[in-house]
Amino acid sequence: MEFTHPISSYQYDSSVTCTSTRQESVSQKLFIIRCFHPFAVRSPRISIDTINPKVLSCECAFPGEIAVHAEHLQHIIRINPSTLPFDEIINCNIGNPHSLGQQPITFFREVLSLCNYPGLLDKEEIRGLYSSDSIGRAKGILSSISERATWTYTQTRALRAAIAEGIENRDGFPANFEDIFLTDGTSPGVHMMMQLVISNDRDGILCPVPYCPLYSASIALHGGALVPYYLNEETGWGLEISELRLRLETAFAAGINVRALVIINPGNPTGQVLSELNQQEIVQFCRDEHLLLLADEVYQENIYADNKFFTSFKKIARSMGYTDRDLSLVSFHSISKGYYGECGQRGGYMEVTGLDKHIKKQIIKMTSISRCSNLTGQILMSLVMNPPKVGDGSYVLYAKERDEILSSLGRRVKMFVEALNKLEGVTCNEAEGALYLFPRIELPKEALRAARSVRMEGDTFYSRQLLDTTGIVVLPGSDFGQVPGTCHFRITICPPEEKVPEVLVKLANFHRRFMREFGG
Amino acid sequence: MEFTHPISSYQYDSSVTCTSTRQESVSQKLFIIRCFHPFAVRSPRISIDTINPKVLSCECAFPGEIAVHAEHLQHIIRINPSTLPFDEIINCNIGNPHSLGQQPITFFREVLSLCNYPGLLDKEEIRGLYSSDSIGRAKGILSSISERATWTYTQTRALRAAIAEGIENRDGFPANFEDIFLTDGTSPGVHMMMQLVISNDRDGILCPVPYCPLYSASIALHGGALVPYYLNEETGWGLEISELRLRLETAFAAGINVRALVIINPGNPTGQVLSELNQQEIVQFCRDEHLLLLADEVYQENIYADNKFFTSFKKIARSMGYTDRDLSLVSFHSISKGYYGECGQRGGYMEVTGLDKHIKKQIIKMTSISRCSNLTGQILMSLVMNPPKVGDGSYVLYAKERDEILSSLGRRVKMFVEALNKLEGVTCNEAEGALYLFPRIELPKEALRAARSVRMEGDTFYSRQLLDTTGIVVLPGSDFGQVPGTCHFRITICPPEEKVPEVLVKLANFHRRFMREFGG
Repeated sequence: MEFTHPISSYQYDSSVTCTSTRQESVSQKLFIIRCFHPFAVRSPRISIDTINPKVLSCECAFPGEIAVHAEHLQHIIRINPSTLPFDEIINCNIGNPHSLGQQPITFFREVLSLCNYPGLLDKEEIRGLYSSDSIGRAKGILSSISERATWTYTQTRALRAAIAEGIENRDGFPANFEDIFLTDGTSPGVHMMMQLVISNDRDGILCPVPYCPLYSASIALHGGALVPYYLNEETGWGLEISELRLRLETAFAAGINVRALVIINPGNPTGQVLSELNQQEIVQFCRDEHLLLLADEVYQENIYADNKFFTSFKKIARSMGYTDRDLSLVSFHSISKGYYGECGQRGGYMEVTGLDKHIKKQIIKMTSISRCSNLTGQILMSLVMNPPKVGDGSYVLYAKERDEILSSLGRRVKMFVEALNKLEGVTCNEAEGALYLFPRIELPKEALRAARSVRMEGDTFYSRQLLDTTGIVVLPGSDFGQVPGTCHFRITICPPEEKVPEVLVKLANFHRRFMREFGG
Repeated sequence: MEFTHPISSYQYDSSVTCTSTRQESVSQKLFIIRCFHPFAVRSPRISIDTINPKVLSCECAFPGEIAVHAEHLQHIIRINPSTLPFDEIINCNIGNPHSLGQQPITFFREVLSLCNYPGLLDKEEIRGLYSSDSIGRAKGILSSISERATWTYTQTRALRAAIAEGIENRDGFPANFEDIFLTDGTSPGVHMMMQLVISNDRDGILCPVPYCPLYSASIALHGGALVPYYLNEETGWGLEISELRLRLETAFAAGINVRALVIINPGNPTGQVLSELNQQEIVQFCRDEHLLLLADEVYQENIYADNKFFTSFKKIARSMGYTDRDLSLVSFHSISKGYYGECGQRGGYMEVTGLDKHIKKQIIKMTSISRCSNLTGQILMSLVMNPPKVGDGSYVLYAKERDEILSSLGRRVKMFVEALNKLEGVTCNEAEGALYLFPRIELPKEALRAARSVRMEGDTFYSRQLLDTTGIVVLPGSDFGQVPGTCHFRITICPPEEKVPEVLVKLANFHRRFMREFGG
């Protein structure tokens, strides 16, 4: 049995069993040591100077200083609103649809309600309260969970099978429930994969710039090197293989051992949707360079451009004739985005393919250390991958709710993009998908000087001023990475459609004043 | 903005923006490099030999080889039962009460059901289906969550406040909602604290032997040194300060910088409940040695010994007059144990006291990277800390369900202990609390020889034979740490009371045959 990490001198001591005679002799030995080193057995108390430097170095935009300040202002609104030039905080900083009033899908919540209180299933009265297919679905799910009322530590086999079935229906290629790992949202899965592939600070992960801060934070937390590749803003945030290759070669030349490539499709914060041709190039690149492809596909239902559609990387690879032997691929999905937006329920999965059984065993071990993900999230994830079908009692309502949300998001994208591009010095690419826009701002020299004077990045300064003037919360581009010398901010399209015009007017008025004040 | 971990040579390259001219020159430079090193830009494909060695070194009993084999047998029972000498698997390996049929507390599930489907709250019919106070409680909780139907990324302030209130009522000392961090069960909180305090393999954590495998796994995963202290089996798994001091001094002498002390009270797997006097010594020790006290208090409701009761370490410290300035303390609690046993819902919290605001900020950052814990678990945790009170509509049923579960567990402990101590070569301490027994077995030399011949620890061999013969799953002591040369196994008391006699007979018959076969 192993007590410690291999530290020979220490293992010697720890292998000693604690017989009293041995205790005395050890104590005596140490007593002498302590005479020479009186503080030998005092560790410094836990303080900011003595904690894991990886934790310190890790930067996370959630909550970044802007979001923290927004919370502070929210508090002021509650206790002393008259002191602020606005009466509400409008959270356009993260993709958290329900926080801006998006309503949940009725069918999903009916099933969760029944699963949580199975006693209801025996009662006649529920027929008037729940749709017939939600009752059937809840019975089916509960019967697949050991005892129906009892929720145990489990990576529920039946729910993983349902998710695999949903993937098969989506891709037209087989999916295996044993490849499905259920997670509390996407983040734990990303952390797990980073922990798996990063041994030290010479292990690199190719990551898009701009990126989703989850990736930069997770790579830093696990002590790896973020190897940036730039998306090309001029071509609508295009992903160019030449850029990937350049960055890979540059990294290798610098002694960085690049292990994996992160692709976010549809893109966060950029909203671009990759073409199949582009995806094929990426798959080929990963195969040739032996890179693990980490495909963040959580926005797969959020597509707005008429000529674009989502194709999973697994479907692309299989269509190219590549099997598990050719490509290591992890696809991340969650219940937090799409038309459902159930951020608070924390459900997600990774589909792990092209990693051998020894690695799978390690992943099973890592998931098992935290027992399992929450069963509500597991159930919801299985529902999202198997929603009501035509003919099901709930289908009409379900489809209506889904389509209203998605078509409204599409209209909101257009409203935002059009308004943003009208602003002086602002250029904004159309978002083909996801929940964000990432407009670029040419800030006046005066504004940049003012920002430096308060030790802020230019876009942080702009975002802070926007918040203090209008209550609108956006995140500065510097939280996501951007070409040095450029300024952006990320804004979500999640505000309710009827509220968007008001948000855009507030934003435009602020921008005009800001540019005037700083002589843009 | 920082792209990578500080690696000067690499930062130079990454700071370069990607103008085409620069691209060419870099590519040319690298082309030359590649002529000398043709494989310079090929990383080895992800394999068991190229992943993070910390992940490999980390051992976890869940699922250990016994549990994995049990799953295999479960599968055989489904497809070809006649080939086995038993017709069911009895999972006595983990504290997963619902998996052995324990029913959930009605009130808790009523509230969850309503919270998941708020539309119900407007309907008259529910009065016949839900208790009046569950309806009131659900309304209160939902009104405290931004929009009642909408579940967002949130460490819900109101639920943290409710938990703090529950702690105050339990301890009689103030608790602050800002000290409460909501987690998906206990594990993520433990990982977070290990990640916070462990910088490298010279950072040590004092951990009881036997321990809960979560701690050994988490310390290994984060690359720290597990500094063992032995609980004294002869004195009913007593925790002796002299042993703590010896191990601390031994570790320091070996160059290990001990940062924290893990205490599990009530104990897992030992079931011992610490006396207040003992707890005072521990608090004093941590204060004097500047150790962070990590108090696993998840079994606080599972007390069976008449003369024992649970006292939180925070109450002990405050009673001694110690404040945040004197002691750094993290208390872990969860919804998975107690009389509720809601393992699958994944709820928990850490109460973090005595760590300054800079560290708190780091913990907030770490929790924020994964957004938040699941809201169902958050709600359930707040209910567990604020169950129905005398006079509430649900109180009578709630109290009946709670008391039946706890008193039955108390009776089961006695049945198990009595039966185990009757077995040849087996000695078992009374469990004063928690959900386990950790009996010691004197294995015949022949059995140890047989175990060695199949490369197994003696207790793994015994546990495996028990499983193959009876279908009863227990975990070998070697998964928990034990004094070298001794053999134990951990068995839960969770099987339904009416089933316990059968389990004990099967165990006794197996044990008799085993000892006879190996000439004990």
